[in-house]
Amino acid sequence: MLEQFKVQINDEVRVDESKLRDLVSSLFVKAGLSKDDADLGADVLVTADIRGVDTHGVSNMLRTYMDYFSKGIINPDPKTVITRETPSTANIDGDRGLGIITTPKAMELAIEKAKNVGMGVVTIHNSRHYGMASYYTLMAVEHNMIGMSMTSCPPQVLPTFGSEPLLGTNPIALAAPAATEAPFVFDAAMSAVAANKLGLARRNGTKLLGGWVADKNGVPIMNEVDPPVPEYEHYNAQGGATSHLLPLGGTREIGSHKGYGMMCVVDILSGILTGGGYGMNPGRPNFGHYVAAYNIEAFMDTNEFKETMDEWINMLKTSKPAKGHSRVLYPGQAEAEVAEDRLNNGIPLHNEVVEWFESACKEHGIPFELV
Amino acid sequence: MLEQFKVQINDEVRVDESKLRDLVSSLFVKAGLSKDDADLGADVLVTADIRGVDTHGVSNMLRTYMDYFSKGIINPDPKTVITRETPSTANIDGDRGLGIITTPKAMELAIEKAKNVGMGVVTIHNSRHYGMASYYTLMAVEHNMIGMSMTSCPPQVLPTFGSEPLLGTNPIALAAPAATEAPFVFDAAMSAVAANKLGLARRNGTKLLGGWVADKNGVPIMNEVDPPVPEYEHYNAQGGATSHLLPLGGTREIGSHKGYGMMCVVDILSGILTGGGYGMNPGRPNFGHYVAAYNIEAFMDTNEFKETMDEWINMLKTSKPAKGHSRVLYPGQAEAEVAEDRLNNGIPLHNEVVEWFESACKEHGIPFELV
Repeated sequence: MLEQFKVQINDEVRVDESKLRDLVSSLFVKAGLSKDDADLGADVLVTADIRGVDTHGVSNMLRTYMDYFSKGIINPDPKTVITRETPSTANIDGDRGLGIITTPKAMELAIEKAKNVGMGVVTIHNSRHYGMASYYTLMAVEHNMIGMSMTSCPPQVLPTFGSEPLLGTNPIALAAPAATEAPFVFDAAMSAVAANKLGLARRNGTKLLGGWVADKNGVPIMNEVDPPVPEYEHYNAQGGATSHLLPLGGTREIGSHKGYGMMCVVDILSGILTGGGYGMNPGRPNFGHYVAAYNIEAFMDTNEFKETMDEWINMLKTSKPAKGHSRVLYPGQAEAEVAEDRLNNGIPLHNEVVEWFESACKEHGIPFELV
Repeated sequence: MLEQFKVQINDEVRVDESKLRDLVSSLFVKAGLSKDDADLGADVLVTADIRGVDTHGVSNMLRTYMDYFSKGIINPDPKTVITRETPSTANIDGDRGLGIITTPKAMELAIEKAKNVGMGVVTIHNSRHYGMASYYTLMAVEHNMIGMSMTSCPPQVLPTFGSEPLLGTNPIALAAPAATEAPFVFDAAMSAVAANKLGLARRNGTKLLGGWVADKNGVPIMNEVDPPVPEYEHYNAQGGATSHLLPLGGTREIGSHKGYGMMCVVDILSGILTGGGYGMNPGRPNFGHYVAAYNIEAFMDTNEFKETMDEWINMLKTSKPAKGHSRVLYPGQAEAEVAEDRLNNGIPLHNEVVEWFESACKEHGIPFELV
């Protein structure tokens, strides 16, 4: 599972996480962000790289963010406003700001509310890309709370029995603290496979597995296929690729109506409920977010909770693996192991990404140092 | 989808819902419940039957409940106590009461809290069977709120890469109101298939589909098999069948780690966080529950929310179906259609169930009338 977790990297360079952080922050400042916001955004991106969630780290996201800042698609200096608020909830207008910078602030507010009244739920509308959903849940863990997080995304997944991509991959994340074990961290798109896996297969020439996509008629493709497969890849008027991703479950028989239903839940809680509309809303290129903090002490003794988490985690970790597998992992374990390696040995970046950093530094007059 | 939803019934009798309700309530009173509690429990059971969720209706559950009441496994007169409380949360000791009776009361408390402070989350530990998870979420809908509900269950599902059933089927439900459409209602176990489907296949002699279960070594069975399959059915010391159900996703490649992770989320929020432990806890035959109510008005204008729900539901309903299918359904639509039929034409009960009612009425001295 560990290997499957990581984006495969050849020709990699291991870079220092604090130097990477400084460089990302400097680039964000050049894009018009305040130093504080730039540092915060850099922390969200680099934390994804440290935890092995390379799909949401600097390699995959930073260039898009810089491009969107320069084109005005993302507002580098948003004036966020709370549009409604109660003791346990708030709804924020993100003013087209980048989700990775507005959402940590929303989670801080949720944590404050949870301290005061037990629970905090904060939503954001009119926002942009969310980054790694589990970052915000881990903020709650640092306060001995349970954190939950989700975001509605632009549509690329079919409903069960449908042939049009109407729902986003709509990830859900939840993190909970343990006493001595690494925290439980679940973070997953509610599609059968992350959209990024399709692009990766295309670039690397690897096969798409059965149950990932449907053909142009919406019929699930259940055998392995070589990319690119014209039957499932369609290009929209702007030249962007859209996909016929299947919901988690793949087919109705194995439960795709459940993945479909969970994507709907995310569209409702982080899209419709925020007032910002859903993924398919006409003229909506934006994202809606939802974060929640649960004050464990409001329900039970926090130390007892964390000790029970340790016991439960150990039950899973030490259980007998299936034939052909060496161990059973719990959600968050693989990422904690990758983080230990990367903090000690550096973050692997593809040569091509390092070269991009070098040219971006030259363009913006920033000293280039990564190793 | 409609047909797959329903438990297949041959030799059925259509019975009147209000007569069925009265009869169930009378039996509950004979089991030691107060008249109010008996009426409430009857409503939860019969609502499942009306909505076509026969797995959680009278046919499948009432005999077990009556048996457990008579054996003292379920407490007919629980003294429930709130063990911790904040303005937006509460945790309740269910005193071994039946979940279908304590949980509606917990949801009422959650709704009250949501009215006061925006959100309400109420958990229950030391409880018994939960019934249909969506009943409680529909209570919130009646107050123009979003309802969420989940329960931890006894273990019968494998973790990804595991060979021991360590997690419950752990269903999650969420309901949200619309303006003119039937409410959105999602309600599903986080296993690939409901445990009940295995028993049904055994009784009806139908095949188990690929992706539902694993063999005794934990290896997913991906082809159709005839039940009973000794490789996946194991009988515990008490003679009860345990199963090697697979998580939603079936295999790691189609996302079983996501179904596994969602089952863990339910174990944490409705098990560990309630202080009542998780499904596999030694000596724990009980269930832990979680209900939440979201006051829509705390986030946005409720009418605007409901109109957007209508628009989004219609987008799904009117989208182009996949080849081989006649329509795309949204979660809750099939159940609403079944409810319309059953309220008009009666609830179908198997002859054998009707006979049980007749004998139970005789035993308890209750007049028998169902049609």
